[in-house]
Amino acid sequence: MNLALIGVGLIGGSMALKLKQKHFVSKVFGVDFNENHLAEAKKLNIIDEISDLENAVKNSDIIIIAVPVDATKNILPEILNLISDKQTVLDVGSTKSGIAKSIENNPKRNRFVATHPMWGTENSGPQAATADAFAERAAVICDEENSAKDALDLVKKLYENLEMNLLFMNSEDHDIHTAYISHISHITSYALANTVLEKEREEDTIFQLASSGFSSTVRLAKSHPEMWVPIFRQNKENVLDVLNEHITQLRKFKSALEKDNFEYLEELITNANKIRGILK
Amino acid sequence: MNLALIGVGLIGGSMALKLKQKHFVSKVFGVDFNENHLAEAKKLNIIDEISDLENAVKNSDIIIIAVPVDATKNILPEILNLISDKQTVLDVGSTKSGIAKSIENNPKRNRFVATHPMWGTENSGPQAATADAFAERAAVICDEENSAKDALDLVKKLYENLEMNLLFMNSEDHDIHTAYISHISHITSYALANTVLEKEREEDTIFQLASSGFSSTVRLAKSHPEMWVPIFRQNKENVLDVLNEHITQLRKFKSALEKDNFEYLEELITNANKIRGILK
Repeated sequence: MNLALIGVGLIGGSMALKLKQKHFVSKVFGVDFNENHLAEAKKLNIIDEISDLENAVKNSDIIIIAVPVDATKNILPEILNLISDKQTVLDVGSTKSGIAKSIENNPKRNRFVATHPMWGTENSGPQAATADAFAERAAVICDEENSAKDALDLVKKLYENLEMNLLFMNSEDHDIHTAYISHISHITSYALANTVLEKEREEDTIFQLASSGFSSTVRLAKSHPEMWVPIFRQNKENVLDVLNEHITQLRKFKSALEKDNFEYLEELITNANKIRGILK
Repeated sequence: MNLALIGVGLIGGSMALKLKQKHFVSKVFGVDFNENHLAEAKKLNIIDEISDLENAVKNSDIIIIAVPVDATKNILPEILNLISDKQTVLDVGSTKSGIAKSIENNPKRNRFVATHPMWGTENSGPQAATADAFAERAAVICDEENSAKDALDLVKKLYENLEMNLLFMNSEDHDIHTAYISHISHITSYALANTVLEKEREEDTIFQLASSGFSSTVRLAKSHPEMWVPIFRQNKENVLDVLNEHITQLRKFKSALEKDNFEYLEELITNANKIRGILK
Protein backbone atom coordinates (compact mmCIF):
# COMPACT_ATOMS: atom_id res chain seq x y z
CA MET A 1 0.00 0.00 0.00
CA ASN A 2 1.27 3.49 -0.87
CA LEU A 3 1.06 6.48 1.48
CA ALA A 4 0.90 10.17 0.64
CA LEU A 5 2.27 12.08 3.62
CA ILE A 6 1.19 15.72 3.48
CA GLY A 7 3.45 17.39 6.03
CA VAL A 8 6.64 15.55 6.94
CA GLY A 9 7.12 17.03 10.44
CA LEU A 10 7.07 15.55 13.93
CA ILE A 11 3.63 13.89 13.77
CA GLY A 12 3.52 12.83 10.11
CA GLY A 13 7.14 11.71 10.27
CA SER A 14 6.60 9.61 13.38
CA MET A 15 3.55 7.96 11.82
CA ALA A 16 5.36 7.12 8.57
CA LEU A 17 8.35 5.65 10.39
CA LYS A 18 6.18 3.27 12.37
CA LEU A 19 3.86 2.35 9.47
CA LYS A 20 6.88 1.46 7.35
CA GLN A 21 8.49 -0.50 10.16
CA LYS A 22 5.26 -2.51 10.49
CA HIS A 23 5.03 -2.97 6.69
CA PHE A 24 1.58 -1.38 6.77
CA VAL A 25 2.73 0.86 3.92
CA SER A 26 5.47 0.24 1.38
CA LYS A 27 6.14 3.45 -0.52
CA VAL A 28 5.77 6.91 1.06
CA PHE A 29 5.41 10.08 -1.05
CA GLY A 30 6.33 13.20 0.89
CA VAL A 31 4.72 16.61 0.28
CA ASP A 32 5.69 19.74 2.20
CA PHE A 33 6.15 23.50 1.68
CA ASN A 34 9.41 23.27 3.59
CA GLU A 35 12.09 21.94 1.25
CA ASN A 36 14.60 21.44 4.04
CA HIS A 37 12.11 19.24 5.85
CA LEU A 38 11.55 17.23 2.66
CA ALA A 39 15.28 16.66 2.16
CA GLU A 40 15.71 15.78 5.83
CA ALA A 41 12.72 13.37 5.75
CA LYS A 42 14.16 11.65 2.70
CA LYS A 43 17.56 11.31 4.37
CA LEU A 44 15.95 9.84 7.49
CA ASN A 45 13.97 7.32 5.37
CA ILE A 46 10.69 8.79 6.58
CA ILE A 47 9.67 9.24 2.93
CA ASP A 48 10.83 7.44 -0.21
CA GLU A 49 10.03 10.09 -2.78
CA ILE A 50 9.68 13.87 -2.71
CA SER A 51 6.54 14.76 -4.64
CA ASP A 52 4.02 17.45 -5.47
CA LEU A 53 0.51 17.13 -4.04
CA GLU A 54 -1.22 15.87 -7.17
CA ASN A 55 1.33 13.16 -7.96
CA ALA A 56 1.46 11.97 -4.35
CA VAL A 57 -2.32 11.76 -4.01
CA LYS A 58 -2.87 10.06 -7.41
CA ASN A 59 -0.35 7.32 -6.57
CA SER A 60 -1.44 6.54 -3.01
CA ASP A 61 -4.06 4.38 -1.32
CA ILE A 62 -4.07 6.39 1.85
CA ILE A 63 -3.38 10.08 2.42
CA ILE A 64 -2.35 11.48 5.82
CA ILE A 65 -2.69 15.24 6.32
CA ALA A 66 -0.28 16.26 9.07
CA VAL A 67 -0.01 20.03 8.71
CA PRO A 68 -1.20 22.89 10.97
CA VAL A 69 -5.00 22.91 11.33
CA ASP A 70 -5.54 26.05 9.24
CA ALA A 71 -3.60 24.52 6.35
CA THR A 72 -5.62 21.30 6.73
CA LYS A 73 -8.82 23.26 6.23
CA ASN A 74 -7.44 24.69 2.98
CA ILE A 75 -5.90 21.57 1.55
CA LEU A 76 -8.55 18.99 2.41
CA PRO A 77 -11.15 20.01 -0.25
CA GLU A 78 -8.36 20.09 -2.84
CA ILE A 79 -7.36 16.52 -1.93
CA LEU A 80 -10.96 15.27 -1.91
CA ASN A 81 -11.26 16.64 -5.46
CA LEU A 82 -8.31 14.54 -6.56
CA ILE A 83 -9.26 11.17 -5.11
CA SER A 84 -11.39 8.23 -6.25
CA ASP A 85 -13.80 6.15 -4.16
CA LYS A 86 -11.03 3.65 -3.49
CA GLN A 87 -8.80 6.10 -1.63
CA THR A 88 -8.90 7.19 2.00
CA VAL A 89 -7.89 10.51 3.55
CA LEU A 90 -7.28 11.21 7.25
CA ASP A 91 -6.12 14.25 9.15
CA VAL A 92 -4.35 14.23 12.51
CA GLY A 93 -5.08 17.76 13.75
CA SER A 94 -5.76 18.97 17.29
CA THR A 95 -9.09 20.64 16.42
CA LYS A 96 -11.97 18.95 14.68
CA SER A 97 -15.23 20.95 14.46
CA GLY A 98 -14.04 23.59 12.01
CA ILE A 99 -12.60 21.04 9.62
CA ALA A 100 -15.70 18.84 9.86
CA LYS A 101 -17.96 21.79 9.07
CA SER A 102 -15.86 22.96 6.15
CA ILE A 103 -16.45 19.73 4.20
CA GLU A 104 -19.92 18.67 5.41
CA ASN A 105 -21.43 19.09 1.95
CA ASN A 106 -18.46 17.79 -0.01
CA PRO A 107 -19.52 14.85 -2.26
CA LYS A 108 -16.41 12.93 -1.22
CA ARG A 109 -16.93 13.56 2.54
CA ASN A 110 -17.22 9.84 3.24
CA ARG A 111 -13.66 9.14 2.02
CA PHE A 112 -12.37 11.29 4.87
CA VAL A 113 -11.77 10.12 8.46
CA ALA A 114 -11.17 12.78 11.11
CA THR A 115 -8.61 11.65 13.70
CA HIS A 116 -6.40 12.97 16.47
CA PRO A 117 -3.54 10.89 17.87
CA MET A 118 -2.94 12.32 21.36
CA TRP A 119 0.80 12.72 21.31
CA GLY A 120 3.24 15.50 20.59
CA THR A 121 6.31 17.16 22.02
CA GLU A 122 7.57 20.72 22.18
CA ASN A 123 9.88 19.87 19.27
CA SER A 124 9.03 19.90 15.58
CA GLY A 125 10.32 18.82 12.17
CA PRO A 126 11.26 15.41 10.75
CA GLN A 127 14.43 15.18 12.84
CA ALA A 128 12.21 15.05 15.96
CA ALA A 129 10.15 12.14 14.56
CA THR A 130 10.35 8.78 16.31
CA ALA A 131 8.71 5.45 15.44
CA ASP A 132 7.52 4.51 18.91
CA ALA A 133 5.98 7.84 19.85
CA PHE A 134 2.39 6.69 19.70
CA ALA A 135 2.39 3.28 21.35
CA GLU A 136 -0.13 2.84 24.21
CA ARG A 137 -1.50 6.38 23.81
CA ALA A 138 -5.03 7.44 22.89
CA ALA A 139 -6.17 8.24 19.35
CA VAL A 140 -9.57 9.81 18.77
CA ILE A 141 -11.73 9.18 15.69
CA CYS A 142 -14.45 11.81 15.22
CA ASP A 143 -17.84 11.61 13.52
CA GLU A 144 -17.25 8.02 12.37
CA GLU A 145 -20.82 7.85 10.98
CA ASN A 146 -19.81 10.30 8.25
CA SER A 147 -17.06 8.06 6.87
CA ALA A 148 -17.50 5.09 4.52
CA LYS A 149 -17.10 1.75 6.27
CA ASP A 150 -14.04 0.66 4.27
CA ALA A 151 -12.31 4.00 4.84
CA LEU A 152 -13.03 3.81 8.57
CA ASP A 153 -11.80 0.20 8.77
CA LEU A 154 -8.56 1.11 7.03
CA VAL A 155 -7.91 3.99 9.41
CA LYS A 156 -8.67 1.77 12.41
CA LYS A 157 -6.12 -0.71 11.09
CA LEU A 158 -3.63 2.11 10.62
CA TYR A 159 -3.99 3.11 14.29
CA GLU A 160 -3.72 -0.51 15.39
CA ASN A 161 -0.37 -0.58 13.61
CA LEU A 162 0.63 2.51 15.55
CA GLU A 163 -0.38 0.54 18.69
CA MET A 164 -2.76 3.26 19.84
CA ASN A 165 -5.96 2.92 21.88
CA LEU A 166 -8.95 4.14 19.88
CA LEU A 167 -11.69 6.40 21.26
CA PHE A 168 -14.76 7.61 19.39
CA MET A 169 -16.59 10.91 19.85
CA ASN A 170 -18.11 13.72 17.82
CA SER A 171 -16.08 16.75 16.75
CA GLU A 172 -17.74 19.14 19.19
CA ASP A 173 -17.04 16.94 22.22
CA HIS A 174 -13.50 16.41 21.01
CA ASP A 175 -12.86 20.15 20.85
CA ILE A 176 -14.29 20.73 24.32
CA HIS A 177 -12.21 17.94 25.89
CA THR A 178 -8.96 18.95 24.19
CA ALA A 179 -9.47 22.55 25.34
CA TYR A 180 -9.27 21.20 28.92
CA ILE A 181 -6.73 18.48 28.48
CA SER A 182 -4.29 20.03 26.08
CA HIS A 183 -4.94 23.57 24.84
CA ILE A 184 -5.17 25.28 28.25
CA SER A 185 -1.92 23.59 29.36
CA HIS A 186 -0.17 25.30 26.48
CA ILE A 187 -1.57 28.74 27.30
CA THR A 188 -0.64 28.31 30.97
CA SER A 189 2.84 27.28 30.01
CA TYR A 190 3.30 30.17 27.55
CA ALA A 191 2.02 32.66 30.15
CA LEU A 192 4.30 31.20 32.81
CA ALA A 193 7.31 31.52 30.51
CA ASN A 194 6.35 35.14 29.75
CA THR A 195 5.92 35.84 33.47
CA VAL A 196 9.40 34.58 34.26
CA LEU A 197 10.96 36.27 31.24
CA GLU A 198 9.25 39.55 32.16
CA LYS A 199 10.09 39.62 35.84
CA GLU A 200 13.22 37.55 36.25
CA ARG A 201 15.97 39.47 34.51
CA GLU A 202 18.76 37.23 35.75
CA GLU A 203 18.71 34.57 33.05
CA ASP A 204 21.70 32.78 34.50
CA THR A 205 19.82 32.35 37.73
CA ILE A 206 16.82 30.85 35.93
CA PHE A 207 19.11 28.44 34.19
CA GLN A 208 20.99 27.40 37.30
CA LEU A 209 18.07 27.26 39.71
CA ALA A 210 15.31 25.91 37.51
CA SER A 211 14.11 22.81 39.27
CA SER A 212 12.58 19.86 37.47
CA GLY A 213 9.18 21.16 38.58
CA PHE A 214 9.61 24.43 36.72
CA SER A 215 11.03 22.71 33.65
CA SER A 216 8.11 20.33 33.37
CA THR A 217 5.52 23.10 33.88
CA VAL A 218 7.13 25.35 31.29
CA ARG A 219 8.17 22.68 28.78
CA LEU A 220 5.16 23.25 26.51
CA ALA A 221 6.10 26.94 26.18
CA LYS A 222 8.72 25.82 23.68
CA SER A 223 5.97 24.80 21.22
CA HIS A 224 5.90 26.80 18.00
CA PRO A 225 3.26 29.41 17.05
CA GLU A 226 2.90 27.96 13.50
CA MET A 227 1.09 25.01 15.02
CA TRP A 228 -0.59 26.61 18.01
CA VAL A 229 -2.04 29.91 16.75
CA PRO A 230 -4.30 28.02 14.29
CA ILE A 231 -5.39 25.61 17.04
CA PHE A 232 -6.36 28.44 19.40
CA ARG A 233 -8.07 30.23 16.51
CA GLN A 234 -10.17 27.22 15.54
CA ASN A 235 -11.02 26.29 19.11
CA LYS A 236 -11.40 29.87 20.30
CA GLU A 237 -14.73 29.60 22.16
CA ASN A 238 -13.83 26.49 24.14
CA VAL A 239 -10.34 27.77 24.92
CA LEU A 240 -11.76 31.09 26.16
CA ASP A 241 -14.22 29.23 28.39
CA VAL A 242 -11.47 27.22 30.03
CA LEU A 243 -9.09 30.19 30.18
CA ASN A 244 -11.70 32.27 32.01
CA GLU A 245 -12.22 29.48 34.51
CA HIS A 246 -8.45 29.14 34.94
CA ILE A 247 -8.04 32.85 35.70
CA THR A 248 -10.92 32.54 38.21
CA GLN A 249 -9.10 29.65 39.89
CA LEU A 250 -5.83 31.61 40.04
CA ARG A 251 -7.69 34.56 41.58
CA LYS A 252 -8.83 32.26 44.39
CA PHE A 253 -5.18 31.59 45.25
CA LYS A 254 -4.45 35.30 45.06
CA SER A 255 -7.36 36.13 47.35
CA ALA A 256 -6.45 33.42 49.87
CA LEU A 257 -2.89 34.80 50.06
CA GLU A 258 -3.90 38.46 50.19
CA LYS A 259 -6.33 37.81 53.03
CA ASP A 260 -3.95 35.47 54.90
CA ASN A 261 -6.70 32.87 54.62
CA PHE A 262 -4.46 29.82 54.83
CA GLU A 263 -7.33 27.48 55.60
CA TYR A 264 -8.86 28.38 52.26
CA LEU A 265 -5.45 27.98 50.59
CA GLU A 266 -5.19 24.49 52.07
CA GLU A 267 -8.69 23.70 50.81
CA LEU A 268 -7.75 24.80 47.27
CA ILE A 269 -4.62 22.66 47.31
CA THR A 270 -6.40 19.65 48.80
CA ASN A 271 -8.98 19.89 46.04
CA ALA A 272 -6.23 20.08 43.39
CA ASN A 273 -4.64 16.97 44.88
CA LYS A 274 -7.70 15.02 43.63
CA ILE A 275 -6.04 15.02 40.21
CA ARG A 276 -3.83 12.30 41.73
CA GLY A 277 -6.73 9.86 41.55
CA ILE A 278 -7.40 10.65 37.90
CA LEU A 279 -3.90 10.81 36.48
CA LYS A 280 -1.54 7.96 37.20
CA MET B 1 30.33 11.15 61.87
CA ASN B 2 26.80 10.89 63.28
CA LEU B 3 23.78 12.55 61.71
CA ALA B 4 20.54 13.69 63.34
CA LEU B 5 17.84 13.67 60.69
CA ILE B 6 14.89 15.81 61.77
CA GLY B 7 12.15 14.81 59.34
CA VAL B 8 12.58 11.46 57.58
CA GLY B 9 10.50 12.23 54.46
CA LEU B 10 11.35 12.55 50.77
CA ILE B 11 14.11 15.16 51.08
CA GLY B 12 15.69 14.14 54.39
CA GLY B 13 15.42 10.47 53.46
CA SER B 14 17.06 10.97 50.07
CA MET B 15 19.92 12.92 51.68
CA ALA B 16 20.54 10.30 54.36
CA LEU B 17 20.55 7.45 51.84
CA LYS B 18 23.23 9.13 49.73
CA LEU B 19 25.33 10.35 52.67
CA LYS B 20 25.42 6.81 54.09
CA GLN B 21 26.22 5.32 50.70
CA LYS B 22 29.18 7.74 50.42
CA HIS B 23 30.26 6.98 54.03
CA PHE B 24 30.02 10.69 54.81
CA VAL B 25 27.96 9.73 57.86
CA SER B 26 27.98 6.45 59.77
CA LYS B 27 25.06 6.46 62.21
CA VAL B 28 21.77 8.25 61.50
CA PHE B 29 19.31 9.13 64.29
CA GLY B 30 15.80 9.69 62.95
CA VAL B 31 13.32 12.14 64.53
CA ASP B 32 9.78 12.66 63.20
CA PHE B 33 6.25 13.30 64.47
CA ASN B 34 5.01 10.62 62.10
CA GLU B 35 5.64 7.22 63.67
CA ASN B 36 4.78 5.35 60.49
CA HIS B 37 7.42 7.34 58.64
CA LEU B 38 9.97 6.53 61.36
CA ALA B 39 9.24 2.81 61.17
CA GLU B 40 9.34 2.92 57.37
CA ALA B 41 12.63 4.88 57.36
CA LYS B 42 14.18 2.35 59.75
CA LYS B 43 13.02 -0.54 57.54
CA LEU B 44 14.47 1.15 54.45
CA ASN B 45 17.83 1.73 56.22
CA ILE B 46 17.45 5.48 55.86
CA ILE B 47 17.95 5.78 59.64
CA ASP B 48 19.69 3.47 62.09
CA GLU B 49 17.92 4.49 65.28
CA ILE B 50 14.54 6.04 66.07
CA SER B 51 15.14 8.80 68.58
CA ASP B 52 13.68 11.83 70.36
CA LEU B 53 14.99 15.25 69.42
CA GLU B 54 17.26 15.79 72.43
CA ASN B 55 18.98 12.40 72.23
CA ALA B 56 19.47 12.68 68.46
CA VAL B 57 20.96 16.18 68.65
CA LYS B 58 23.23 15.40 71.64
CA ASN B 59 24.73 12.39 69.86
CA SER B 60 25.28 13.91 66.40
CA ASP B 61 27.95 16.00 64.70
CA ILE B 62 25.60 17.34 62.07
CA ILE B 63 21.86 17.98 62.24
CA ILE B 64 19.69 18.22 59.12
CA ILE B 65 16.28 19.84 59.50
CA ALA B 66 14.04 18.53 56.70
CA VAL B 67 10.52 19.40 57.84
CA PRO B 68 7.95 21.89 56.45
CA VAL B 69 9.22 25.49 56.67
CA ASP B 70 6.83 26.54 59.47
CA ALA B 71 8.00 23.63 61.64
CA THR B 72 11.63 24.56 60.85
CA LYS B 73 11.05 28.03 62.25
CA ASN B 74 9.74 26.51 65.50
CA ILE B 75 12.30 23.79 65.95
CA LEU B 76 15.50 25.61 64.94
CA PRO B 77 15.88 27.75 68.13
CA GLU B 78 15.22 24.64 70.21
CA ILE B 79 18.01 22.79 68.42
CA LEU B 80 20.44 25.73 68.65
CA ASN B 81 19.84 25.68 72.44
CA LEU B 82 20.89 22.04 72.60
CA ILE B 83 24.13 22.15 70.60
CA SER B 84 27.76 22.91 71.37
CA ASP B 85 30.20 24.94 69.26
CA LYS B 86 31.42 21.73 67.66
CA GLN B 87 28.08 20.85 66.07
CA THR B 88 26.56 22.07 62.81
CA VAL B 89 22.87 22.53 61.89
CA LEU B 90 21.45 22.99 58.41
CA ASP B 91 17.93 23.30 57.06
CA VAL B 92 16.82 22.38 53.54
CA GLY B 93 13.61 24.43 53.25
CA SER B 94 12.20 26.20 50.18
CA THR B 95 11.97 29.63 51.88
CA LYS B 96 14.82 31.37 53.63
CA SER B 97 14.17 34.97 54.74
CA GLY B 98 11.68 34.18 57.51
CA ILE B 99 13.88 31.53 59.05
CA ALA B 100 16.98 33.75 58.81
CA LYS B 101 15.21 36.61 60.53
CA SER B 102 13.83 34.41 63.30
CA ILE B 103 17.31 33.52 64.56
CA GLU B 104 19.33 36.61 63.67
CA ASN B 105 20.03 37.42 67.33
CA ASN B 106 20.46 33.85 68.49
CA PRO B 107 23.89 33.41 70.19
CA LYS B 108 24.39 30.13 68.29
CA ARG B 109 23.43 31.62 64.90
CA ASN B 110 26.86 30.87 63.45
CA ARG B 111 26.44 27.10 63.93
CA PHE B 112 23.54 27.19 61.45
CA VAL B 113 23.85 27.05 57.64
CA ALA B 114 20.76 27.92 55.58
CA THR B 115 20.51 25.72 52.47
CA HIS B 116 18.07 24.71 49.75
CA PRO B 117 18.76 21.70 47.54
CA MET B 118 16.71 22.35 44.37
CA TRP B 119 15.04 19.02 43.97
CA GLY B 120 11.71 17.49 44.90
CA THR B 121 8.88 15.49 43.45
CA GLU B 122 5.13 15.49 43.88
CA ASN B 123 5.56 12.47 46.16
CA SER B 124 6.37 12.46 49.86
CA GLY B 125 7.45 10.21 52.72
CA PRO B 126 10.49 7.96 53.20
CA GLN B 127 9.25 5.40 50.66
CA ALA B 128 9.68 8.08 47.95
CA ALA B 129 13.30 8.75 48.97
CA THR B 130 16.06 7.87 46.53
CA ALA B 131 19.84 8.13 46.88
CA ASP B 132 20.58 9.68 43.50
CA ALA B 133 17.91 12.37 43.54
CA PHE B 134 20.26 15.30 43.99
CA ALA B 135 23.15 14.54 41.64
CA GLU B 136 23.98 17.34 39.16
CA ARG B 137 21.28 19.65 40.51
CA ALA B 138 21.71 23.06 42.15
CA ALA B 139 21.92 23.60 45.91
CA VAL B 140 21.76 27.12 47.32
CA ILE B 141 23.60 28.26 50.46
CA CYS B 142 22.21 31.51 51.89
CA ASP B 143 23.84 34.20 53.99
CA GLU B 144 27.13 32.29 54.24
CA GLU B 145 28.75 35.21 56.07
CA ASN B 146 26.56 34.47 59.09
CA SER B 147 27.88 30.93 59.52
CA ALA B 148 31.14 29.87 61.20
CA LYS B 149 33.79 28.82 58.70
CA ASP B 150 34.04 25.22 59.97
CA ALA B 151 30.24 24.82 59.86
CA LEU B 152 30.11 26.21 56.34
CA ASP B 153 32.98 23.97 55.19
CA LEU B 154 31.26 20.89 56.59
CA VAL B 155 28.00 21.73 54.81
CA LYS B 156 29.85 22.37 51.55
CA LYS B 157 31.45 18.94 51.91
CA LEU B 158 28.02 17.43 52.60
CA TYR B 159 26.66 18.87 49.35
CA GLU B 160 29.74 17.70 47.45
CA ASN B 161 28.90 14.21 48.66
CA LEU B 162 25.38 14.69 47.31
CA GLU B 163 27.07 15.66 44.01
CA MET B 164 25.22 18.98 43.85
CA ASN B 165 26.36 22.25 42.30
CA LEU B 166 26.61 24.98 44.93
CA LEU B 167 25.27 28.52 44.49
CA PHE B 168 25.53 31.34 47.01
CA MET B 169 23.07 34.18 47.56
CA ASN B 170 21.34 36.05 50.37
CA SER B 171 17.98 34.92 51.76
CA GLU B 172 16.00 37.74 50.17
CA ASP B 173 17.30 37.02 46.66
CA HIS B 174 16.72 33.33 47.18
CA ASP B 175 13.08 33.90 48.07
CA ILE B 176 12.52 36.13 45.05
CA HIS B 177 14.12 33.67 42.63
CA THR B 178 12.30 30.63 44.00
CA ALA B 179 8.98 32.49 43.73
CA TYR B 180 9.62 32.64 39.96
CA ILE B 181 11.30 29.32 39.43
CA SER B 182 9.36 27.05 41.73
CA HIS B 183 6.51 28.52 43.79
CA ILE B 184 4.50 30.00 40.89
CA SER B 185 4.74 26.70 38.98
CA HIS B 186 2.98 25.02 41.85
CA ILE B 187 0.18 27.58 42.01
CA THR B 188 -0.30 27.36 38.24
CA SER B 189 -0.44 23.62 38.43
CA TYR B 190 -2.90 23.60 41.34
CA ALA B 191 -5.13 26.12 39.57
CA LEU B 192 -5.00 24.10 36.35
CA ALA B 193 -6.01 20.94 38.18
CA ASN B 194 -8.89 22.81 39.83
CA THR B 195 -9.94 24.23 36.44
CA VAL B 196 -10.15 20.80 34.90
CA LEU B 197 -11.79 19.23 37.94
CA GLU B 198 -14.36 22.05 38.01
CA LYS B 199 -15.25 22.08 34.33
CA GLU B 200 -14.50 18.62 33.02
CA ARG B 201 -17.00 16.32 34.69
CA GLU B 202 -16.11 13.31 32.60
CA GLU B 203 -13.24 11.93 34.65
CA ASP B 204 -12.86 8.89 32.41
CA THR B 205 -12.27 11.19 29.48
CA ILE B 206 -9.54 13.09 31.34
CA PHE B 207 -7.88 9.82 32.16
CA GLN B 208 -8.06 8.45 28.64
CA LEU B 209 -7.25 11.62 26.73
CA ALA B 210 -4.71 13.27 29.01
CA SER B 211 -1.68 13.75 26.84
CA SER B 212 1.84 13.84 28.18
CA GLY B 213 1.69 17.64 27.91
CA PHE B 214 -1.21 17.88 30.32
CA SER B 215 0.33 15.37 32.70
CA SER B 216 3.59 17.25 32.90
CA THR B 217 1.89 20.63 33.39
CA VAL B 218 -0.36 19.31 36.12
CA ARG B 219 2.11 16.97 37.83
CA LEU B 220 2.98 19.43 40.58
CA ALA B 221 -0.69 19.68 41.56
CA LYS B 222 -0.22 16.37 43.35
CA SER B 223 2.07 18.06 45.91
CA HIS B 224 0.75 18.09 49.47
CA PRO B 225 -0.58 21.15 51.34
CA GLU B 226 1.40 20.26 54.51
CA MET B 227 4.53 21.30 52.67
CA TRP B 228 3.21 24.03 50.39
CA VAL B 229 0.87 26.14 52.52
CA PRO B 230 3.80 27.09 54.83
CA ILE B 231 5.98 27.92 51.83
CA PHE B 232 3.35 30.23 50.31
CA ARG B 233 2.74 31.76 53.73
CA GLN B 234 6.42 32.53 54.32
CA ASN B 235 7.03 33.78 50.80
CA LYS B 236 3.68 35.53 50.48
CA GLU B 237 4.83 38.92 49.13
CA ASN B 238 7.08 37.50 46.41
CA VAL B 239 4.54 34.86 45.41
CA LEU B 240 1.79 37.49 45.15
CA ASP B 241 4.03 39.65 42.96
CA VAL B 242 4.67 36.82 40.53
CA LEU B 243 1.08 35.60 40.66
CA ASN B 244 -0.20 39.06 39.73
CA GLU B 245 2.18 39.17 36.79
CA HIS B 246 1.10 35.68 35.75
CA ILE B 247 -2.59 36.66 35.77
CA THR B 248 -1.67 39.75 33.70
CA GLN B 249 0.11 37.51 31.18
CA LEU B 250 -2.87 35.15 30.96
CA ARG B 251 -5.17 38.14 30.38
CA LYS B 252 -3.07 39.07 27.36
CA PHE B 253 -3.86 35.66 25.84
CA LYS B 254 -7.53 36.13 26.71
CA SER B 255 -7.60 39.57 25.12
CA ALA B 256 -5.79 38.40 21.97
CA LEU B 257 -8.36 35.61 21.55
CA GLU B 258 -11.40 37.73 22.35
CA LYS B 259 -10.34 40.38 19.85
CA ASP B 260 -9.31 37.86 17.18
CA ASN B 261 -5.90 39.51 17.32
CA PHE B 262 -3.92 36.51 16.11
CA GLU B 263 -0.85 38.57 15.31
CA TYR B 264 -0.65 39.55 18.96
CA LEU B 265 -1.23 35.92 19.96
CA GLU B 266 1.67 34.88 17.75
CA GLU B 267 3.83 37.58 19.33
CA LEU B 268 3.01 36.31 22.83
CA ILE B 269 3.88 32.75 21.86
CA THR B 270 7.07 33.75 20.05
CA ASN B 271 8.17 35.61 23.16
CA ALA B 272 7.41 32.57 25.35
CA ASN B 273 9.52 30.42 22.99
CA LYS B 274 12.57 32.35 24.24
CA ILE B 275 12.49 30.10 27.30
CA ARG B 276 13.99 27.50 24.92
CA GLY B 277 17.30 29.37 24.99
CA ILE B 278 17.33 29.46 28.78
CA LEU B 279 16.17 25.97 29.67
CA LYS B 280 17.86 23.04 28.04
